[in-house]
Amino acid sequence: MRAVDIIIRKKQGFPLTKEEIHFLIDGYVKGTIPDYQMSAFLMAVCFVPLTEEEQYYMTMEMLQSGEQLDLSNINGICVDKHSTGGVGDKTTLVVGPIVASFGLKLAKMSGRGLGHTGGTLDKLESIPNFQINITPQEFFKQVNEISIAVVGQSFNMVPADKKLYALRDVTGTVESIGLIASSIISKKLASGAKTILLDVKVGDGAFMKDKKSAIELANAMVKLGKKNNRQMIAVLTNMEEPLGRMVGNSLEVIEAIETLKGNGEEKFTELCYELSSELLIETKICKSKEEAYQKIKEKIDNKEALEKLRQMINYQHGNSNVIDDYSLFPQVKYKIDVPSLKTGYVRMLKAEEIGHCAMLLGAGRKNKEDKIDYAVGIVLNKKVGDFVHQGDSLCTIYSQTRDIQEIINKIQTIYQIEDNNKNNMPIILEIIR
Amino acid sequence: MRAVDIIIRKKQGFPLTKEEIHFLIDGYVKGTIPDYQMSAFLMAVCFVPLTEEEQYYMTMEMLQSGEQLDLSNINGICVDKHSTGGVGDKTTLVVGPIVASFGLKLAKMSGRGLGHTGGTLDKLESIPNFQINITPQEFFKQVNEISIAVVGQSFNMVPADKKLYALRDVTGTVESIGLIASSIISKKLASGAKTILLDVKVGDGAFMKDKKSAIELANAMVKLGKKNNRQMIAVLTNMEEPLGRMVGNSLEVIEAIETLKGNGEEKFTELCYELSSELLIETKICKSKEEAYQKIKEKIDNKEALEKLRQMINYQHGNSNVIDDYSLFPQVKYKIDVPSLKTGYVRMLKAEEIGHCAMLLGAGRKNKEDKIDYAVGIVLNKKVGDFVHQGDSLCTIYSQTRDIQEIINKIQTIYQIEDNNKNNMPIILEIIR
Repeated sequence: MRAVDIIIRKKQGFPLTKEEIHFLIDGYVKGTIPDYQMSAFLMAVCFVPLTEEEQYYMTMEMLQSGEQLDLSNINGICVDKHSTGGVGDKTTLVVGPIVASFGLKLAKMSGRGLGHTGGTLDKLESIPNFQINITPQEFFKQVNEISIAVVGQSFNMVPADKKLYALRDVTGTVESIGLIASSIISKKLASGAKTILLDVKVGDGAFMKDKKSAIELANAMVKLGKKNNRQMIAVLTNMEEPLGRMVGNSLEVIEAIETLKGNGEEKFTELCYELSSELLIETKICKSKEEAYQKIKEKIDNKEALEKLRQMINYQHGNSNVIDDYSLFPQVKYKIDVPSLKTGYVRMLKAEEIGHCAMLLGAGRKNKEDKIDYAVGIVLNKKVGDFVHQGDSLCTIYSQTRDIQEIINKIQTIYQIEDNNKNNMPIILEIIR
Repeated sequence: MRAVDIIIRKKQGFPLTKEEIHFLIDGYVKGTIPDYQMSAFLMAVCFVPLTEEEQYYMTMEMLQSGEQLDLSNINGICVDKHSTGGVGDKTTLVVGPIVASFGLKLAKMSGRGLGHTGGTLDKLESIPNFQINITPQEFFKQVNEISIAVVGQSFNMVPADKKLYALRDVTGTVESIGLIASSIISKKLASGAKTILLDVKVGDGAFMKDKKSAIELANAMVKLGKKNNRQMIAVLTNMEEPLGRMVGNSLEVIEAIETLKGNGEEKFTELCYELSSELLIETKICKSKEEAYQKIKEKIDNKEALEKLRQMINYQHGNSNVIDDYSLFPQVKYKIDVPSLKTGYVRMLKAEEIGHCAMLLGAGRKNKEDKIDYAVGIVLNKKVGDFVHQGDSLCTIYSQTRDIQEIINKIQTIYQIEDNNKNNMPIILEIIR
């Protein structure tokens, strides 16, 4: 078998066999297939999409390239959640505590973000002393005792994906449904949970810019999971404008806490209820959406969900007093309001561009080595559909410097304000099982 | 400018600017763009063909990556000829001497073959003592004095193409009209001749398997040449079956000599007359095809063309007695006839498969390091359209070993023999200027 022949076969549209995909992936991990052949293959795949079978072989090869988490020592139903990523996405910090308060076990390995804002791990690290690296023993103990842990990847899971993703990132081959699906699902399978909830973001601030490709990705992932006997739910959610009102690491933790206190923004709260209820129904803890919503509200009202977050912070050595006193988070020097230049309705507020501004402030990484400033970010005082008077504050910038005129100017153009109101887009677009 | 952004732009179908192509090609030659990004780009180009402008920028970048031959010291009209390559293609060894006998100057840099049989240089080296590496001074002197020289690439011409071609070869990205055209034309431009004849092979044994893509390639090359003020002629010629009767290095030199003696196979002779006449008309040495054909016949009959070949061999230190005594060529130990298993007409004789058999005998290189056996090859006693009785010799294998039963068996299946005769395909398919 020669790599070049496999590349040519794929390029010409012939489906590859299990053996051919094994030869490529295994050889790439072992170093016998060089980067330049793999990148040519990946680019061919961008034009000749992986078939269902190829996606499956690819996923299994990647899964088998490393360790897999054995959750058999955990008593109870293990669930997992994955978001394809968006701007202001702090959903895990709300949905995790909610479902844990029902006794579902969320043993979550999370990632760092390379993009507009940090990943879930970066957000958690904005809590003073919070530890994302704990031993496997501590990890399993914590999940058994309090039902929730969100940690870094301490195991050598799916090394093939790590190597492939790094290559895709620099060769323009990230955007392929089959590659994205096999990358995500191989990692979820390695994490061991039997019930997996996928939050597939759609819109300007997401990987999937349109609903059609998001549905395609969701279907691909659900199929891959089911072939491996996982219960799969994919929820397509709107990512045209940023999620919630806060963008930035500690700001997003604060918004999560507020949501767990029952003070969350309406759409973000709806999303958290919806995702939680899907997990509760899929695991047969609740019978209907009505029942689930009602019980979730109880867990919010009686603070049980909030206490789960507090427990998790305590177990992971963080200062849980932040829950009651936000001044314990790292602070910015300046909070600067961005005034509206017009009177009218906010028609558009592109998530990706707001995310980019947050990154410029220091909330995200441009390069892997960049250090994140946990305190900086943007609080959106106005969102799509809101009415605004000229001079009103559109948003408040949390910054360590006053030298942000360019960002202010940019935000004033990102907020598209018109005379007429826009039909409000729903937050939940579709559910795929 | 970042390579990954350029790759993504091309992948998404946006045409690249001159600056972007400069950034890629120049960076690749200098080593700042790694192989894995270039191979991803090349694969994208296989799916999103280079536009006319992109081909031009690419050609010019490659041309400017190295030295260019200055032919201003040569008195007379310099012409060049390029074949896209096929099985049994010894055309240069006939057309070169013919046009040189009219005083046209053929200062030709040729290549070695990686494939079924050797390239023109390998064929010439089957002549005892023939030197393909001569000094630039000797080269120009020879062309001025006898009008013809065929040598190796002693200059550092088009290094970008060398590096790119090596990468394309192992990444499945050879087959792209734009890449092929810019590769060929950059080399032809670097070689300096003002009139360029392109022999574009079409069919099973050629790069271009069908007439449509061959026309596309020919048009692309003619345009690229004309944009650089060259006189361009592209002749599409049939490469379904091998060219002529002989496949193998010294065998092909012998067939060229026989053709220059007036004893060539009909179709191969027609091809040589046609290509020569195109050059003679384009350079205004002849006014019409009739005149050209008549004058070429005179040069064959009076042996002037043959004497040009003899002069070239002498100038390049070869033993020109081979022209009159083929036993001076390297010899094989065995000449083994392949008998026909059927009676009927030869309907098909796939060039590529015959070429592959010749390679197995040792006439070509599988890898760059392989040594060629100049003596081995195949003499086709029957070609498409010929009638054959069961037991007749289809071809004669020139071999150094008797252990060739597998090759014999294979050749018996390559010759497709049926009851009815086939309409004979013409050798010249189209001429594009």
